[in-house]
Amino acid sequence: MVQDVLYGRNPVLALLRAKSRRADEIAVLAGGHGPLAEVVALARRAGVKVSFRTRDQLTAMAGSADHQGVVARVAAADYADLGALLRLPAERGEPAFFLALDQVQDPRNLGAVVRSADAFGVHGLIVPKHHQVGLTGAVARTAMGALEALAVAKETNLVSALETLKKSGIWVYGGVLEGGIAPWNADLTGPLCLVLGGEGEGLRPLVARTCDVLLTIPMAGRVGSLNVAAAAGVLCYEVARQRRARAEVP
Amino acid sequence: MVQDVLYGRNPVLALLRAKSRRADEIAVLAGGHGPLAEVVALARRAGVKVSFRTRDQLTAMAGSADHQGVVARVAAADYADLGALLRLPAERGEPAFFLALDQVQDPRNLGAVVRSADAFGVHGLIVPKHHQVGLTGAVARTAMGALEALAVAKETNLVSALETLKKSGIWVYGGVLEGGIAPWNADLTGPLCLVLGGEGEGLRPLVARTCDVLLTIPMAGRVGSLNVAAAAGVLCYEVARQRRARAEVP
Repeated sequence: MVQDVLYGRNPVLALLRAKSRRADEIAVLAGGHGPLAEVVALARRAGVKVSFRTRDQLTAMAGSADHQGVVARVAAADYADLGALLRLPAERGEPAFFLALDQVQDPRNLGAVVRSADAFGVHGLIVPKHHQVGLTGAVARTAMGALEALAVAKETNLVSALETLKKSGIWVYGGVLEGGIAPWNADLTGPLCLVLGGEGEGLRPLVARTCDVLLTIPMAGRVGSLNVAAAAGVLCYEVARQRRARAEVP
Repeated sequence: MVQDVLYGRNPVLALLRAKSRRADEIAVLAGGHGPLAEVVALARRAGVKVSFRTRDQLTAMAGSADHQGVVARVAAADYADLGALLRLPAERGEPAFFLALDQVQDPRNLGAVVRSADAFGVHGLIVPKHHQVGLTGAVARTAMGALEALAVAKETNLVSALETLKKSGIWVYGGVLEGGIAPWNADLTGPLCLVLGGEGEGLRPLVARTCDVLLTIPMAGRVGSLNVAAAAGVLCYEVARQRRARAEVP
């Protein structure tokens, strides 16, 4: 099985609390105490193997010295399939709220997107199989536990995945640097999927043409554009804002 | 003079285009061509010394191999003083829009905040002198040129700086994880300063008590909270949205 590691106290605690079966083993600093005791207790309760290692062994496992005394071996993140993703909105009784990313390469950017998406209630993330960073330990670490909570589907062909969504009545809103409408002038309260391109590249033309509506976050600065993680945070916030503001109207 | 370096093609181009006098020297890969020619031409036009180096020399200067063939030596970023910051809104004919950060430690987070702040038209950033990452090369690189465009004041005492703003009729809005009002229920169209705390720490109690209004971005996720850069992007967007939406009303 392909294996991946997750390290650091909070990411490992989130993994265990999510009651995922994905943790194969938790390796903990021998002689460590305090917060590590909670990790060990949770792991034992969840039936996950616990082993004790030296600091150097943990650093070698994590590929980083920044493990805070705990490393989890996990199967490479389980991807959900698109059909399972599509069932989530109905299960939660909410209009669909998906986010698709095209060719994001930086694990810290992907991790930040995952964290913001989960915080704003996104039901699932769709990423392409190629030219896209996978769900690595660096992604999980930046996501601060949110990767364990968010369903992610990996699709060979992003355009045909978006077409599948459209056939289910989901509107596809693409983020572009210019030429789109301001997010607050679009109605984002219905079932939708936001689509954002990779760092500095924007959406590929075929992906942009697949979108029902193009959105542009108006910029006031003299330099420029938003990082893909900032753009994702802002657009997810706008969706959440419109849905909550509508719910607040008496 | 304290020196700092900036590296990578886009950050150095932005530095030169900003016509800042802060570039002391541009070091370029000897025998490099293509995009580097534009850097050399711009630097010569700006009267900045140009030198040619080997790849290893550039890596040593930059402290990173990720320099793309060009490194600029700059004086450590010039900080603006608070008085100069306070004059900017009137010069631009806009209600004041400031952002203060308390104890942000990660240079990539600070760079991302600077990039988003500039993109949404923030007039100036206020940071404390202590327990806060400075304006380093890593910050500039993540900010993708925005650090050259945004005025930054460094204050010994953040609380007294906020009190000075309040005396000038600027309202102080603090971001907190819970207990504040939703940003869309606050009127953010008047002169204001947003205040955000560092990674995972939130605002220190004395800073929170100095705020006129506390804002909480409602969270829907099962895990959590937003990264400080994502929160800054969202709140700056909300200010820009309210101001533009108001301007659009006939």
